[in-house]
Order: sequence, then structure tokens, then C-alpha cells
Amino acid sequence: MIPASVTRTVTTVGLIGRQDRSDELASEAPLEIRVNARGYAVTMRTPGNDVELSAGFLVSEGLVAGPDDLLSVDVLAEVEGDVIDAKVAGPGALVAMDRQRNIYTTSSCGVCGLASIEAVRTTSRFELHDNTLTVAADLVAQLPGRLQSAQRLFESTGGVHAAGLFDVGDDSVVVREDVGRHNAVDKVVGHAALEGRLPLSNCVLQVSGRASFELVQKAAMAGVPILAAVSAPSALAVELAEALGITLIGFSRESSFNIYSHGHRVTGALS
Amino acid sequence: MIPASVTRTVTTVGLIGRQDRSDELASEAPLEIRVNARGYAVTMRTPGNDVELSAGFLVSEGLVAGPDDLLSVDVLAEVEGDVIDAKVAGPGALVAMDRQRNIYTTSSCGVCGLASIEAVRTTSRFELHDNTLTVAADLVAQLPGRLQSAQRLFESTGGVHAAGLFDVGDDSVVVREDVGRHNAVDKVVGHAALEGRLPLSNCVLQVSGRASFELVQKAAMAGVPILAAVSAPSALAVELAEALGITLIGFSRESSFNIYSHGHRVTGALS
Repeated sequence: MIPASVTRTVTTVGLIGRQDRSDELASEAPLEIRVNARGYAVTMRTPGNDVELSAGFLVSEGLVAGPDDLLSVDVLAEVEGDVIDAKVAGPGALVAMDRQRNIYTTSSCGVCGLASIEAVRTTSRFELHDNTLTVAADLVAQLPGRLQSAQRLFESTGGVHAAGLFDVGDDSVVVREDVGRHNAVDKVVGHAALEGRLPLSNCVLQVSGRASFELVQKAAMAGVPILAAVSAPSALAVELAEALGITLIGFSRESSFNIYSHGHRVTGALS
Repeated sequence: MIPASVTRTVTTVGLIGRQDRSDELASEAPLEIRVNARGYAVTMRTPGNDVELSAGFLVSEGLVAGPDDLLSVDVLAEVEGDVIDAKVAGPGALVAMDRQRNIYTTSSCGVCGLASIEAVRTTSRFELHDNTLTVAADLVAQLPGRLQSAQRLFESTGGVHAAGLFDVGDDSVVVREDVGRHNAVDKVVGHAALEGRLPLSNCVLQVSGRASFELVQKAAMAGVPILAAVSAPSALAVELAEALGITLIGFSRESSFNIYSHGHRVTGALS
């Protein structure tokens, strides 16, 4: 099993210039949860406490409410410990069977069944390694502020995420908000798609929260070469960005930010 | 369609005592996305820009990469505008059909297909309205600090969420971390479930981020009477907590916090 966090080299861009240093990133990996030997769910999680995670997930799903409902939860040896098999008894077993036949996906699980960097690579219809977009470090540092000043809901509720699609060509930015950060990204990408602008080869996608595997996947599917997040990226997000040719920026602030992959698209340091 | 935010009365507990005031909360409601007239996904989102959200979601899913793939995206009149029908052509149409037959759910979509307060109420096996647990305001204010001091991964990576299950009886707290905040909750609930401790009638669930509909649902399914979040709750989270008899606390800090529902479980003010 991969550890809960890993160490990577990151480039910090600040007023003092650009500096490479070692940084620790939270891990993220798919876990398949089987119920009574049949696939039930795939979730992206930080490895560790997988038996607890699966048991709690089954409680949340309403399949388990007491000790009699859950006979066992085992880590299967296959796929490096990333598969759990739970034996559920009682009414939950029937509910699970019904759902195993009928269930939908959601916007929060674009990764389901794809679950690997290779899968995203083959699914994506846009090639980003050849993309020649560059942006000045000063511009990158301005984007969180531009995002926040356009966030109307956040100001009033303090409880929503935002995504901004910044077009380097015409200096325009489209901002959308949602309680779900994946939804905020889907909204700005959808806005552009409805205008026939895919792939978004000339754009920076700025998000208000962290950069997960799934947000990098969403950037890739829309053909966005630069993804910037206000908070930390996960280790898998960095790996995926590295593999797909996406420039991944994290801890994006007015006075500094970190570059995790393909730093050549960011020119200079802060002035 | 419900507005992007709504106004509610909230009780602020601080050093000056307890004060009722009016507060604005972000809305959250399920959106069903159909592809070629068949159900494809249900997602919880902040209402607004639903056509964009759906188009972007289809891009992220790899079903749409250009104007020829997406023939139309329409809001259906049924269910108060919360259903979208997208007409997809080309290879995406076949991929969608395949997924409509085979797809899994994830930990981030416990609400899928349940999608309403009534559905959660009938699914939950524990009754919380009668629960008589009370906690002192001072204790509530301490919990975020206790959570953070137990967060090992956060300290090193800055990029994970935490959930803490605090037992009022023995003053113990179990903390788990994950890149996904729903997973962190599933881990602590699972820990307790594996110890045969459900329902968690004597516990406060403290989470590091916002309080969404789904986190309240998870608290309900585990029989937790008090849910406290460091950031804002959504309006639907408050409605669900209200309906299920759960005390919902938000903006939980050392010097003050807000109570959104069933405030009788919190005694006194800060000292």
C-alpha cells in the first residue's frame, strides 16, 4: 500500500525568486469496496484505515446499523491492498444487491472505474504536452484575488467553492461557485464548451480549494494546460499532471506560489 | 428553482453570550443529469448555471470534446427544474449507454437516488429527536483545537480534511484524516462501527471543513446527535439536521461558534 504522504520536489515562486525544495504531499488512491463479493463502489481516498473507511461507508449507505449487519471486512491481496470485501447480512444485503444493479454515478466520481493515470490518458481527447502557453508569475499570483473578488456567494455565505477560467489571450475570466468544488469546475468548463471553445489551450483554471486527482482529470478533459489551486495538491494529482503535461500550481497566494509540474509554462518570478 | 442562497436564523455563541441573528447560507439541491433521455448521474449542487454544470460534467466524463458531440442541453420542467436532459452524439453516446448499464457509486454520492430529506429520514435506522445528550459550550469551542492537534497529515501536507468522533462520556476522541472529507467521516464512523458502538448517541462529530447535506446524512446514519463543522453549513444541511433532530454547529472556533438547529443540546455560553 502506498504511504499516507509522499515527498516530492516543488518549485516555490516568490518575491525572492524561484527555489526548488522538498515538500510532503498527501496521497490519494482509488479503493474498491465490494459487498458480498460484488463491486459496490470505488472511492478516491488517502490510504490508511481502509477497513474503517469501508465499514463507515456502509453505515452511511444505510447497509449497516449494528454488529449483526457486518460479518467481516477484509483487505484483499489483489491490486496492492486497494480492494476491500465486506460481508453484509440482514436487510442491507438485499439493498446492496438492488443498488449493485441500478446505481448512478455523480459529478464527484468522474474517476470511478477509470481509477488510474493510464485510464485518464487514454480517455482524454486533447494532447497537452505540446501546448506552448506561457504565463508570467505575476499573473499567476493575481488570479486568486481576481477569483475572490468575483465570488458573490462566498462573500455572503462563506461556504462555497469557486472555479475561474482565465483566458490568457483576452484577459477575461469566467467565475462560477458551488458548494461542491468539482461542480464549480464543471460549470466554467461547461460555459466554455457551450461556446464551442474546447480545447481550452489558452486558459488557466484557478480553483479555490485543493487540487485533487479529479480536478486535474477535469482540466485534462477540457484541454486546460495550467491548473492553479489556492491550497495543497495531492500526490496523485501531481503525478497525473506530470503524466498529462499539465502545469500544476498550489498554495497560490499574492506573495508566493508553488509549482509542482511542468514549470516551464510559468515565466519569471514575482516583481 | 431554489435560489443560490437563503436566509436563516442562527444562534451565535461567544464570549458575550448567545445571540440570535439572521444569516445567509449557500443552497444545495440534487440535480439529475440524463443523457439521451436515460438517467446518467445525480449530483448535489448549488442551483444556478445548471446547463453549464451539466455540459462541463459531460466534458469531464469524456462524453463531450467538441460542439458536434453535444446536440442540446435542456432543463426539463419536472421536479422544479432539477432535471437536465442532454443530447449527446458521436462516440460519447455509446460510452454513456455502456456506463448507464454498469456504473458504480462512490463515497461522495451517498445521497444518489435518495436525494431528499424524506428519503434520508426513512432510510435512517436511528431516531435522534429523543436523544438527550447535552454538551457545554466551552467543550464545543475546544473541539476544533483538539482535532487539529491530532492531525498529523495536515501538519505535514496542509492538504487533508479531518473528522473527530468525540465521546462525551469518557472524553475520548478518535481522529482520522483523508483528502476527501466524506472519507474522513466514514473512517471515524467505521472505527466505531467495528467496535460495535452504533448508534453513537453520546458523541459529537467534529469535521474540519464545511457541513454539507451529505455529512449530516452520515451523522444521522451513525446515530450521532451533534455535528460541528469548522466552516459554513449549506442551507440543505441545516434543513436536514432540523428535520432529523441533529444539532448542527458551524464556524466552530475557540472564541465563538454558530448553532443552526436544535440548540438545546448546547448548554451555556463561553466562559
